Amino acid sequence: MDHLFLRACRRQPVPRTPIWMMRQAGRYLPAYRAVRAKASFLEMCRTPELACEVTLQPIDEYGFDAAILFSDILITLPAMGIDVAFPEAGPKIGTPVRDSAAIAALHVPDPEAELPYSLEAIRQIKKGLAGRVPLIGFAGAPLTMLTYAVEGGGSKDYAHTKKLLYGAPKDAHALLDKLARTCALFLEAQVKAGADCVQIFDSWGGIVSPGDFREYPLRYAKQVIAHLRTTCPGTPIIYFVNGCAPYLDDYASSGADVLGVDWRVGIDEVRRRVGDGVALQGNLDPGALFAPPAEIRARVADILARAGNLGHIFNLGHGVLPETNPEHVRAMVTAVRELSAT
Amino acid sequence: MDHLFLRACRRQPVPRTPIWMMRQAGRYLPAYRAVRAKASFLEMCRTPELACEVTLQPIDEYGFDAAILFSDILITLPAMGIDVAFPEAGPKIGTPVRDSAAIAALHVPDPEAELPYSLEAIRQIKKGLAGRVPLIGFAGAPLTMLTYAVEGGGSKDYAHTKKLLYGAPKDAHALLDKLARTCALFLEAQVKAGADCVQIFDSWGGIVSPGDFREYPLRYAKQVIAHLRTTCPGTPIIYFVNGCAPYLDDYASSGADVLGVDWRVGIDEVRRRVGDGVALQGNLDPGALFAPPAEIRARVADILARAGNLGHIFNLGHGVLPETNPEHVRAMVTAVRELSAT
Repeated sequence: MDHLFLRACRRQPVPRTPIWMMRQAGRYLPAYRAVRAKASFLEMCRTPELACEVTLQPIDEYGFDAAILFSDILITLPAMGIDVAFPEAGPKIGTPVRDSAAIAALHVPDPEAELPYSLEAIRQIKKGLAGRVPLIGFAGAPLTMLTYAVEGGGSKDYAHTKKLLYGAPKDAHALLDKLARTCALFLEAQVKAGADCVQIFDSWGGIVSPGDFREYPLRYAKQVIAHLRTTCPGTPIIYFVNGCAPYLDDYASSGADVLGVDWRVGIDEVRRRVGDGVALQGNLDPGALFAPPAEIRARVADILARAGNLGHIFNLGHGVLPETNPEHVRAMVTAVRELSAT
Repeated sequence: MDHLFLRACRRQPVPRTPIWMMRQAGRYLPAYRAVRAKASFLEMCRTPELACEVTLQPIDEYGFDAAILFSDILITLPAMGIDVAFPEAGPKIGTPVRDSAAIAALHVPDPEAELPYSLEAIRQIKKGLAGRVPLIGFAGAPLTMLTYAVEGGGSKDYAHTKKLLYGAPKDAHALLDKLARTCALFLEAQVKAGADCVQIFDSWGGIVSPGDFREYPLRYAKQVIAHLRTTCPGTPIIYFVNGCAPYLDDYASSGADVLGVDWRVGIDEVRRRVGDGVALQGNLDPGALFAPPAEIRARVADILARAGNLGHIFNLGHGVLPETNPEHVRAMVTAVRELSAT
């Protein structure tokens, strides 16, 4: 029988709700910080042995029901021709991409030749997991990648992004098409290297109006999903839009098997709006892990009750915060295992 | 007969939809930048003559249907005992407020004694307006003020805020109560000085789960609104939550006359969910002003059609971006005036 996590992705019955956690291989874990002390973030992403080591840490520590490749959503940008640095304060791009010449100069990388370390990491992780739990591959969604490429980093108001989307839509579409092809080929290669499932991270898909959601983030996520349906039939696809509440009707039409749900919206409300044809993943506020364990347990119980036990993968609504107490993560995992058992 | 804007706040029939724009007295305007070249941002807020001058600029330039006091949502923090600087990159707080001792030390200011410049500015603006259009007073909502006080500035993940809300809820409530009393007294004083309407800005009210929305931002906004209902009966109150889509059922219960709507959600969807008992204000994406004028006009038409002409105040979904072309603002104003006329 397939593992819990894959069964939940397919909305098949499960004896309990599976759980993993976005950024589960991360700074909140002492074992991760020990590796990070010896290598830069980018070196860790690009050294298969290190990526493998930290990917397995949270599986060993908490028994999460899925592993996720240690990497970064921006890992493809350097291979496209965009220089990225990863200081602690967040990614910084040397020369932001803001005109048609810069967009034309970008290259759609061949993953086996230009991102070999991620694929080799997947092969090593699969060996290390030895079938214990499935492995999730991932990539940044086209619109989210665009915001970093165009802004040069994070942003408060996404002014450069919107200047491009609304002031020069042809250029925006050309850039999104290249980012979508990059994302699609990279995810396909991850599946061929052994990933059992893939997640498309649209961390900034939620910065636009509903009409623009259809025109930009959703349209290019669909392009990626369509590519994967043809090249990787049967592999579950998770699409995660951070701030999905305003777009639920369209979100349901993405074609993904699983929709990620951030913490700002009730997961029962999402279920009502998207119907029963798709699994949902989420949606505890990462900040709720600052609460005492008893409060964490109560919040887990509330989400489990709202989500129901068919087609639900428990997760945070976004990545775990670095300041999180590892024992609070354990309280969450224990609560999900105990309270969802049928 | 009352002015268009006040009639729309009360859901009375209007011959066309009124329009004003958040941050309409701001850096996108050359006349504003000329004043700003001679004084710091804080000096402008604290010098009634300068605050009055820039408040009137967009009224003279575009004929907006309401003026809004030139000030800042954080203007009350120094009077409470929290040091704030306003560099171009965004506000910075010297010593963030993160424990019960720091919260206990905070003071609820007497507006006439401790924020006299804003009240004097209101008196001067009212003279300058000479009845042309109503004047909106405003203040930061309690939860939004808390995020700045606790984070020390803007934030990507609001980790410190959530540590306080969920890890030390008693402290959080004590701080929110002081912020709510500060906000309420300041808005009351603004009305007594001549403001015709007030807006409570909850720019970061949208960072929490629906349950936490009721417990934190909404609860303390209601405390402010209840105070104003008693002390300033008849004065319309606008409550603006940026990122309101997940909370619409509760948003409708705030008690405000007008709900601000950000650009991420369809204003027709908001109307369906909040019912007919309240006016709505919004909701063009500030970034849409980067589009060519014809596209701006099409987007204005779309919003007007979705909002209907009863109880709608046209506005952006958040503050106008500094890089905005002033002629594109004019295109928006013209489109609203022409397309909403009945």
